[in-house]
Amino acid sequence: MKTLRLALAQINPTVGDFEGNVSKIIYYIEEASKAGAQIVTFPELAITGYPPEDLLLKPQFIEDNLDALNKVQGNVGDITAIVGFVDRKDDIYNAAAIIYNKTLIDTYHKMYLPNYGVFDEYRYFQADARCPMYKIGDTWVGVTICEDIWYPEGPARLQALAGAELVININASPYRIGRGKSREDMLSVRAFDSMVIVAYLNTVGGQDELVFDGHSIVIDQSGTVIARGKQFEEDLIVIDLNLEAVMMRRLHAPRRRKEVIKLGKEAVEKISIPVEKTSYEKRRVSRLRLSSLEHTVLEPKEEIYRSLVLGTSDYVFKNGFKGVMVSLSGGIDSSLVASIAVDALGKENVTGLFMPSPYTSKESREDVYALRDNLGIKVVEVPIDNIFKSYLEALKQEFQNLPEDTTEENIQARTRGNILMAFSNKFGWLVLTTGNKSELSVGYATLYGDMAGGFAVIKDVPKTMVYELCKWKNNKEGRAVIPERVLRKEPSAELRPDQKDTDTLPPYHVLDPILKAYIEDDKSFDEILSLGCEVECVQNVIRMIDKSEYKRRQAPPGIKITQRAFGRDRRFPITNRYRGH
Amino acid sequence: MKTLRLALAQINPTVGDFEGNVSKIIYYIEEASKAGAQIVTFPELAITGYPPEDLLLKPQFIEDNLDALNKVQGNVGDITAIVGFVDRKDDIYNAAAIIYNKTLIDTYHKMYLPNYGVFDEYRYFQADARCPMYKIGDTWVGVTICEDIWYPEGPARLQALAGAELVININASPYRIGRGKSREDMLSVRAFDSMVIVAYLNTVGGQDELVFDGHSIVIDQSGTVIARGKQFEEDLIVIDLNLEAVMMRRLHAPRRRKEVIKLGKEAVEKISIPVEKTSYEKRRVSRLRLSSLEHTVLEPKEEIYRSLVLGTSDYVFKNGFKGVMVSLSGGIDSSLVASIAVDALGKENVTGLFMPSPYTSKESREDVYALRDNLGIKVVEVPIDNIFKSYLEALKQEFQNLPEDTTEENIQARTRGNILMAFSNKFGWLVLTTGNKSELSVGYATLYGDMAGGFAVIKDVPKTMVYELCKWKNNKEGRAVIPERVLRKEPSAELRPDQKDTDTLPPYHVLDPILKAYIEDDKSFDEILSLGCEVECVQNVIRMIDKSEYKRRQAPPGIKITQRAFGRDRRFPITNRYRGH
Repeated sequence: MKTLRLALAQINPTVGDFEGNVSKIIYYIEEASKAGAQIVTFPELAITGYPPEDLLLKPQFIEDNLDALNKVQGNVGDITAIVGFVDRKDDIYNAAAIIYNKTLIDTYHKMYLPNYGVFDEYRYFQADARCPMYKIGDTWVGVTICEDIWYPEGPARLQALAGAELVININASPYRIGRGKSREDMLSVRAFDSMVIVAYLNTVGGQDELVFDGHSIVIDQSGTVIARGKQFEEDLIVIDLNLEAVMMRRLHAPRRRKEVIKLGKEAVEKISIPVEKTSYEKRRVSRLRLSSLEHTVLEPKEEIYRSLVLGTSDYVFKNGFKGVMVSLSGGIDSSLVASIAVDALGKENVTGLFMPSPYTSKESREDVYALRDNLGIKVVEVPIDNIFKSYLEALKQEFQNLPEDTTEENIQARTRGNILMAFSNKFGWLVLTTGNKSELSVGYATLYGDMAGGFAVIKDVPKTMVYELCKWKNNKEGRAVIPERVLRKEPSAELRPDQKDTDTLPPYHVLDPILKAYIEDDKSFDEILSLGCEVECVQNVIRMIDKSEYKRRQAPPGIKITQRAFGRDRRFPITNRYRGH
Repeated sequence: MKTLRLALAQINPTVGDFEGNVSKIIYYIEEASKAGAQIVTFPELAITGYPPEDLLLKPQFIEDNLDALNKVQGNVGDITAIVGFVDRKDDIYNAAAIIYNKTLIDTYHKMYLPNYGVFDEYRYFQADARCPMYKIGDTWVGVTICEDIWYPEGPARLQALAGAELVININASPYRIGRGKSREDMLSVRAFDSMVIVAYLNTVGGQDELVFDGHSIVIDQSGTVIARGKQFEEDLIVIDLNLEAVMMRRLHAPRRRKEVIKLGKEAVEKISIPVEKTSYEKRRVSRLRLSSLEHTVLEPKEEIYRSLVLGTSDYVFKNGFKGVMVSLSGGIDSSLVASIAVDALGKENVTGLFMPSPYTSKESREDVYALRDNLGIKVVEVPIDNIFKSYLEALKQEFQNLPEDTTEENIQARTRGNILMAFSNKFGWLVLTTGNKSELSVGYATLYGDMAGGFAVIKDVPKTMVYELCKWKNNKEGRAVIPERVLRKEPSAELRPDQKDTDTLPPYHVLDPILKAYIEDDKSFDEILSLGCEVECVQNVIRMIDKSEYKRRQAPPGIKITQRAFGRDRRFPITNRYRGH
């Protein structure tokens, strides 16, 4: 039976860390060789990390990336390695190097460049229009990069029609809710339509606002998933592909007219890469098992929680921080962030800061300390009363005869921000902010106050989802890690007596669908009304969203989990008179 | 003699303000008609304002833009109006409507979309490949949009070869130092090469980080500038074009072989727009003079200063603020910002805040009050001593036995930030921050401290340029508006005894060229060394730049004046291990 042993190295590179990325790639080439693989493949831009953004405009960076590829090349023996890097010809290209026996056999250039959402690839790369395929051992293999596979008539289709039995697609595809399923569905259709095995390799790891979720898959010629990599972890997937089944499917498919697609003269090139057919048989299969479907897809809440954990740990550690500090209020947002931080970094690397004011309730204090005990973290307490009074004293003359308003609330929030940052400066801890997407959307947050910090873990998590994640976490642990009362009590900023979020905002179960409709789905005012909301409520919410763009522009980065996050993903003018209603 | 009277309406639209923009356009159509113009043209995306960014992803926004164009159309009589808007066919296009007598004659779609620097046009628009021209009265006219004219073989060339005598190019081209000259040079070559009159119309006004500088020009068939609009102000340029001279130049040009450029079947269309030749002769020429070269280009320092003034006034007023507050330290940066604010908004709309600490020198106090008197603004004084002490007291236990460091400096800066924002909240004033580009580049600024505020006026102005602008301003006024001592004394943050900027940074005349080489010119480490800098100095500076990306991500927006500003213009990863040396 004609088979091919394929290894997908689902690695976690770091942007700009050529030395680290090269070491990792070489390590996995060796592991794949030990496992007897004929091909080992690495993610899109594995050499540079993804996305390198404007580093790509530095000629020296491109040069250093070529040097790094060269180091990898020198370590490729009797195995075909496919490695994502930046190629430089007349211009620069998002590319895959095909390397065998220390030789660069060929380079594939990405044909379809994404330039929407978080992607800016037209800013950097030229697209190419050449789709070669390669004979590796007995097998014809096509190589494609990320976006290429999303086009039904893209290179994978051409390669399959020209005879490719396997199409490898290397990716740096960011996580968002439901993305894993939609990828599996699309890839299944591609494999089925073209009667070809599709091996989809994704990178894994956090990079600023993005989390790459791994979740690589191999799909056979009938559209069935036959292997699946871990989500949110590095993995080496090794699988034996049955290539005779590909030909069988083609022979036994209903005798439809063979589609004719005009291939340009250069569209398909054939390059023969000699792989000794028997070479891998001599080797022992390493400790790595041959992949099968042992990894099922995580259930939705766990998937989201895990993405937040990975995004946090990679941001903290890749940026060289030793620990983090979280301001604990006794509320649900800070409780969730502390829980994520502990799962991401270990409890010894998380310090809570409790900064009570006269408006802080007894319950909040109890809940902070209950959470501390449940998570096993240290909590420092610094009351803000006296500092707050010293501000009021200093401003007394200028503010005399003026009524109290949000000014005094914001002074408290900014005092807390100042204290948090003092700890950050003194001990070198990163401050994790605790605001959720609902608050940030409507500007229910104090700039330089509770928004002060280096990384906003749940900035893309709507408040209703915050509750669900806490419930999931407690359920998963079999105990109330996040104290039960925190899930039950009414949300409050506790910046004035008896304050409730609903003094200012609609209830979150009403607010969140409006936010999704407006921010993620670009719905018009009338379309949002048709969701069953009150006219005035929708007008207020939209006005609050538009008016607080200036705050979001100064918010710390945080992890994208929805269709559209704030940050690189949503580029909105601050100066903007459009109301749309 | 065959002539055509052309009007260029160099207007200042506001993003999303359909009502305001339509009124303005209709007003200028009337003015141009009164002036007897046969054609009146408006800037790129005049209907929506530029750049609308992700508003373009909202279907309702596109619809409202079409409605707005429709209103304009209903107000066009016996004149041809060319109006920038977003067209919607199978997709959306950056377009120009050609309207005559309440009728939409045709729509031109931009062919070349910029997707670099601050531009993201591939994120939104499709490019088209159709370049029609129009017979308006007796004259063949080509219409192009912005980027189109930067390509030597772009539509303007095709149109001229097909017989166009006038090419109109509508723009939203942002200011940066030297841009006006490079535009004039390029356009002069285009006109000369194609022996065609080029009418270049730019928008004017501030939009978040960008300032559009106006500076529209008309260039005749020999490459000579024959009319020039004001810089940094709205203007209506009306000019009589001598079209016979175009034919004469073509007849008398050296008899070079006529270049043959293959025009696609659709490449040039001819649409005849009937304009009664005599109609304008009946009208009186309005109060508007026919443009000639009365506007010379501003000298470089004034140009920069004026761009900062316009960027500030438009940010403040377009966002509905009544006034601003500036923290005055007695240093040169805050003095310059206050001076710009007064020129932008009027002295009655600018309040200074002086927040002395024990480290504030007697000289600084004197210079703050001298500046106040020179500018005629109000200054409020709020000392921070007691607040600072209350922080130290609250943190005493946690920080005991630890040496003082930048933590204590930052507490002071953040206390000032908190007080500033309290005034902003209480009185509704926008806070202008005072940091310059040199500081922001190396992170010599306190996040949530001196970086706190809504708009960073001089964030793209290097420190050495700050000095030059102050000198220019004093010279221009014929008196030391910015006190002489402010220009002479050594820069200090005054956050600890005897502190000087040079304790931490190289002198600014050494620092600024390194910053330009690294940030604007993407020079490598070795190339920067070849400027004659010390190895260690360059290493330190690059390290400081890279390490402070997280601060810049949370900085307020400010006005771009250089080749590459921080913000939309420079997209850098925070998580980034690349060192390049």
